[in-house]
Amino acid sequence: MLKTCFDTLRLKAPLIHNITNYVTTNDVANMLLACGASPIMAEDPDDVAEIVALSQGLNINLGNFTLLPVMEVAGKASANLGHTTLLDPVGCGASKKRTTGAKALIKAIPFTAIRGNASEIKTLFYGDGHTQGVDAHQKDAVSQDNLAENITLVKILAAQTGAIIAMTGVLDLVADSHRCYVIANGRPEMSRITGTGCQLSGMMTAFLAANPNHPLDAAAAAVATMGLAGEIAYNHLAPYEGNATYRNRIIDAVYHMTGSTLAKGADYDIY
Amino acid sequence: MLKTCFDTLRLKAPLIHNITNYVTTNDVANMLLACGASPIMAEDPDDVAEIVALSQGLNINLGNFTLLPVMEVAGKASANLGHTTLLDPVGCGASKKRTTGAKALIKAIPFTAIRGNASEIKTLFYGDGHTQGVDAHQKDAVSQDNLAENITLVKILAAQTGAIIAMTGVLDLVADSHRCYVIANGRPEMSRITGTGCQLSGMMTAFLAANPNHPLDAAAAAVATMGLAGEIAYNHLAPYEGNATYRNRIIDAVYHMTGSTLAKGADYDIY
Amino acid sequence: MLKTCFDTLRLKAPLIHNITNYVTTNDVANMLLACGASPIMAEDPDDVAEIVALSQGLNINLGNFTLLPVMEVAGKASANLGHTTLLDPVGCGASKKRTTGAKALIKAIPFTAIRGNASEIKTLFYGDGHTQGVDAHQKDAVSQDNLAENITLVKILAAQTGAIIAMTGVLDLVADSHRCYVIANGRPEMSRITGTGCQLSGMMTAFLAANPNHPLDAAAAAVATMGLAGEIAYNHLAPYEGNATYRNRIIDAVYHMTGSTLAKGADYDIY
Repeated sequence: MLKTCFDTLRLKAPLIHNITNYVTTNDVANMLLACGASPIMAEDPDDVAEIVALSQGLNINLGNFTLLPVMEVAGKASANLGHTTLLDPVGCGASKKRTTGAKALIKAIPFTAIRGNASEIKTLFYGDGHTQGVDAHQKDAVSQDNLAENITLVKILAAQTGAIIAMTGVLDLVADSHRCYVIANGRPEMSRITGTGCQLSGMMTAFLAANPNHPLDAAAAAVATMGLAGEIAYNHLAPYEGNATYRNRIIDAVYHMTGSTLAKGADYDIY
Repeated sequence: MLKTCFDTLRLKAPLIHNITNYVTTNDVANMLLACGASPIMAEDPDDVAEIVALSQGLNINLGNFTLLPVMEVAGKASANLGHTTLLDPVGCGASKKRTTGAKALIKAIPFTAIRGNASEIKTLFYGDGHTQGVDAHQKDAVSQDNLAENITLVKILAAQTGAIIAMTGVLDLVADSHRCYVIANGRPEMSRITGTGCQLSGMMTAFLAANPNHPLDAAAAAVATMGLAGEIAYNHLAPYEGNATYRNRIIDAVYHMTGSTLAKGADYDIY
Repeated sequence: MLKTCFDTLRLKAPLIHNITNYVTTNDVANMLLACGASPIMAEDPDDVAEIVALSQGLNINLGNFTLLPVMEVAGKASANLGHTTLLDPVGCGASKKRTTGAKALIKAIPFTAIRGNASEIKTLFYGDGHTQGVDAHQKDAVSQDNLAENITLVKILAAQTGAIIAMTGVLDLVADSHRCYVIANGRPEMSRITGTGCQLSGMMTAFLAANPNHPLDAAAAAVATMGLAGEIAYNHLAPYEGNATYRNRIIDAVYHMTGSTLAKGADYDIY
């Protein structure tokens, strides 16, 4: 199923609209091109509705928080058109306004999917995450020890919101109300690159837009593609290459990914 | 002549002011440094006129559409000083406001050059391009089959505007009212990198600023340099390297470009 | 001492808040991750105070000049909390508003450190630098011929402001009121990469935040780390690799830097 989702994405090449922060936007655009989609970034209040209509999916990234009003307008328009609409609650928990704003968005908009790290997701729904800037706090991390309770959590959140919940970290959980993928792909060194989460959210929007009838599998395919690309890219690093080159090589690995490579390399269980 | 334009750019090292989108601005800055120019990005309404006066050329990129009022002020100031003033109508056709705004700019400002993909250029002047986000639509692409009519078109647009018209894609047309370069350099994989058009517009502004008496040849030299760099860079890619590394290597290839390499590698006819 | 500062930074992994321009922000974030710190970029007037409180240091980069009011609020809050607060007066001298604004900031905020090129520093304090866009003018460059007077200058500025003054270029001066490091690490090719100064300012904020009791040595350690990384990275470049790849490799070299490598490779005198 992951292979099918990947091949369909390459075939359909959806146009993905991103309202995102300016720190990682170039990498998000190149990652979307790498996976076979086309990116467009647009946030002018006067033309955002037209760009939404033109696109097949909308990726809302809370990083540039000043754009909150535009995010709400665009998100509602996208959901009304039945387009894929994804929320990445970057930095949720780092300030009251971010937390309040993110909570308002999930009330106002029926998102197709919500993707964040464990601290962001927990803060968004329970107000008790331990956000440390834009990185997850160790206390919130998913491990084998607390796996069962976290699977239950994300399934409940998926049932409450109607959205796919993707809580990503060392172990990635991707759930709808019934099933949860637990994905073990990836490398710890990926956390030393800025914007891998943002890139994944962009790519997940593309997978979802191309596979509207299989949202859970599409979201899981995006997560597995990112993690597997991180493993492949790591193997190509020279000893003197670090996080900046690694960033490029992960995008390169997605560029060369095939459905078959993904099917062989994806490391997951479904609960 | 292309060699002379290139050598003169390296010699004069003009300062180029860019009002541009935040998706590709870092690559635009590094591309300007690679070709021998110096970049400055400035868009504060209060200091933009001073930055214009300090610079030798202005590159207006419509990607960050919210800056339209500043673009108009800066563009007029630059033209009044007799400086090179270039328009890149990014996403023209993707929304009414972008199209209207771009049309207003070309009425208000006597641009030295206008560079866009075929859909953007056709929408800008005729309102009948088939823009797909920020990429040209296949229906608008220049090919051997429709080459003659497209050459006629860009010469007419150049005559109407007094600007060099650069309509770039698989085949690049660069025209004034009398002559049209048809340039075949480049690789199809360049379209999988975000911002190659933005980078080319920045570099073209630098070529024009350094060669004010030969605008057609200067603009063509910029296009040939970009395309040839794309060919050279592609040959240095390892099998596992994709669009992110390719992006860097194209800038690297411009960094190492010489006038002689350009003269040998440029693949063009003049009509 | 440089080794100790470096090792302490890796150990403490401070969270660094950046109010910075959008041209180089991605590289600043990856450089902070490379040196062992965590980056957060936040500039919304409504949450900037909370982000300041959450962080251990604040890096104010004047590149995005429109954010001046937020910079002042955040800078005061950071200084009041006793946090590291650094100013990078990018483009000071390029326009009246930038110069006036930068001067207002240094009056309003007791900065821990001020880092800029020679033209920016001289304009900031004396109004007589020869800023050329965002690059230092050759007339202002520090050389063996004018070393003594420049050392005296930066010590005086440090005494006047209470801040560490870092005036960087081919020779880097880092001074408090009593001592001045003169650092010779680095490569001339680094000036052909956009944002190496911005990256250094981010990294310097991290070194200072991790070593609050040794600000002069911490700032000097940041400068030596950047210069040495430039030397190491240059040695790994293939003949066809230029400024874009070099940019990544410098960040990579910081990622792999150790306190011992720094101690061995740092090339400096103290006056």
